[in-house]
Amino acid sequence: VSIDPVRVRLARVAFGHLVEPGRRDLGELIRRHGPVEALRRIRDGAANEGLVAAAAPRLAAGDPYELAERALERAERLGARIVTPEDAEYPDRVEQLVLISVDGPDRLRRDTYPPTCIWVRGAWELAEACERSVAVVGARACTAYGEHVARDLAYGVAERGWTVISGGAFGIDAAAHRGALAADGRTVAVLACGIDRPYPPGHEGLFDRIAETGLVMSEWPPGADPHRHRFLVRNRFIAAATLGTVMVEAHARSGAAFTLERAGLLNRVVMAVPGPVTSAASIGCHRALRESNAILVAGAAHVIDAVGPIGLALAPPEWVPANDQDRLTSLQARVLDGVRPRKILTAEEIAAAVGVSDRDARAALPELVLAGFVVVVGAGYRLGGKRDRPAPEAVDPAGPRTETG
Amino acid sequence: VSIDPVRVRLARVAFGHLVEPGRRDLGELIRRHGPVEALRRIRDGAANEGLVAAAAPRLAAGDPYELAERALERAERLGARIVTPEDAEYPDRVEQLVLISVDGPDRLRRDTYPPTCIWVRGAWELAEACERSVAVVGARACTAYGEHVARDLAYGVAERGWTVISGGAFGIDAAAHRGALAADGRTVAVLACGIDRPYPPGHEGLFDRIAETGLVMSEWPPGADPHRHRFLVRNRFIAAATLGTVMVEAHARSGAAFTLERAGLLNRVVMAVPGPVTSAASIGCHRALRESNAILVAGAAHVIDAVGPIGLALAPPEWVPANDQDRLTSLQARVLDGVRPRKILTAEEIAAAVGVSDRDARAALPELVLAGFVVVVGAGYRLGGKRDRPAPEAVDPAGPRTETG
Repeated sequence: VSIDPVRVRLARVAFGHLVEPGRRDLGELIRRHGPVEALRRIRDGAANEGLVAAAAPRLAAGDPYELAERALERAERLGARIVTPEDAEYPDRVEQLVLISVDGPDRLRRDTYPPTCIWVRGAWELAEACERSVAVVGARACTAYGEHVARDLAYGVAERGWTVISGGAFGIDAAAHRGALAADGRTVAVLACGIDRPYPPGHEGLFDRIAETGLVMSEWPPGADPHRHRFLVRNRFIAAATLGTVMVEAHARSGAAFTLERAGLLNRVVMAVPGPVTSAASIGCHRALRESNAILVAGAAHVIDAVGPIGLALAPPEWVPANDQDRLTSLQARVLDGVRPRKILTAEEIAAAVGVSDRDARAALPELVLAGFVVVVGAGYRLGGKRDRPAPEAVDPAGPRTETG
Repeated sequence: VSIDPVRVRLARVAFGHLVEPGRRDLGELIRRHGPVEALRRIRDGAANEGLVAAAAPRLAAGDPYELAERALERAERLGARIVTPEDAEYPDRVEQLVLISVDGPDRLRRDTYPPTCIWVRGAWELAEACERSVAVVGARACTAYGEHVARDLAYGVAERGWTVISGGAFGIDAAAHRGALAADGRTVAVLACGIDRPYPPGHEGLFDRIAETGLVMSEWPPGADPHRHRFLVRNRFIAAATLGTVMVEAHARSGAAFTLERAGLLNRVVMAVPGPVTSAASIGCHRALRESNAILVAGAAHVIDAVGPIGLALAPPEWVPANDQDRLTSLQARVLDGVRPRKILTAEEIAAAVGVSDRDARAALPELVLAGFVVVVGAGYRLGGKRDRPAPEAVDPAGPRTETG
């Protein structure tokens, strides 16, 4: 079977039109079979029922490869590009989202698989933009205090050469973007709708300014509406792409809290700005400071203190590159020995088979899944494409950088 | 040698006139020899030079026992009483201050020995007042926000039947006392000057209201001025007498921070109220939340959550009653075996002699000092009065309660 990189890429772009981002069933199908075969199986109805059903309406409308080609042309017309894991500028860090998808608590792991493709507007390389970045998140209905603090904090963070990443919404998000721009810094707006369809209305000018030096990006194709559900899916990207997330103001129930929780699960630095205890807009921040390990930050210096020295040395959740079996830890190698090619075994059965603790097996298996050696099937595991039969289209997600760096 | 309880008590009262409260040299002298013999030694110049010099001026003015008798008469005229460790209402919990005095970091252990006598105004029993109590502390130069929060928080704490203890100063202290009174709760003002000399001026009315149901107390005799140094000494009592301390607003450098640190060293619950990061009056609170283990509290419910369920079961730093050698732990007994009657040994030498770790010896020795079995001499230890030659005037600090309870 020959690998056609163009077709691999087109398949990724097609997925962006066929289903919502973040689906675990699609992510696992791709990891097991590669994008082209995964797409074939979905078209043939030979995949997870829900996935096939979700993709059916768009598939009925025409050939997905033609759809993808039209999308690429459309991106070009919009002055944008599409970034897939095959591209050097795809931010590796977001691959760690697999850990939440496989291992996270139920309420946080819905639709948390890494993006298959990202629409990007702006000349800056996406991976570089994320390299030294901090997310600044918070309430749309913020107070004047929150807006002031977000702006001031983003100014200081950007002034120190860090990228401010936020969601482009009213309130804290907009204040953060504006603060970074005011410092002549670069900022990234991660939208939950098509990049041609700036939401909220009124932020067209802001997004144009952001794209001049920074980036406006989205996992949704042009034309996509900003549905409520999409904000939460979008937030996982913000949590994963940055070294730390700061919550500036948040009400008791807020999407920002999910971003913060996911950042914590990914070993990112989790921070919150306090405010008056008499302000409802600070309740979410105070809760994060009381109930999670959020660090109290009162300004940019605190943020850089937390993210900088530790952040740059930050140990990401341990995982192995997809194409490098030699870099398995001894525990991972041992657990992998217990995984069978066809028989589906639970983590406990695998642990018993190779004589490790259940806890160790449960720790190693998600890493092996992430590395492509093992696949999840229901509540169990079996060998993935990587070991016995390398997926024909498997492409190093780190892309050309492994050659040049 | 006969023990004269009246003389013991008078000696304690005399110390309150002779030297500033909290002196470790006096505290150790009393622990070793009992108050009467300690006073004799000071009069005869047979004690620590600094202590003798400090007491000399007042001793020159007359017989200390007569001084003490006049103090007791004066207290009666002022509608007050004097509480010493011999009294049932002496709050045992403050005895734990010995742990800071012996083992605390240098900057915190100055003048931290437990009080020898306390002037008290108000009918409530002091020990009972402290039993379920929370300290609310903070800046004199507070903001309207801080005043509002202190009042509100103290109201809620008092409403739940807890005593609010504070320092009677302007700002946060006064707001806390007033909040407790507004809830028909009881509150204790711990002054850093004579109880007949209400400081700050203008708080006479407040102190009168406090004393109607609660207490106004001081370690300084009537007439004493509120010197700056005395506030810090006073604060150790507030930290020790309560189950937890809440800092409401505090500037970067503040006495409240010392109270909080001492509360932490005593295993009390340490809490701070956040505020706007733009407010200088909240810097001390944010620092406590960032740098110590302070719990963020946004109101009385959070305080009671932190202090109540855990607080009541709070394990105090382990110590043994002064007259009960049988209650030594096996580690304490073992370490005690290594302490010599005359030869001064370091903790490390004692550890080596009995075969325990340095760490264990350093943990056990302060407990043995507190219990009276061992005394500190310079950087070393030797046997105290309790073991080889029981101090003739030794009186159970728990007082009559051991009979009745």
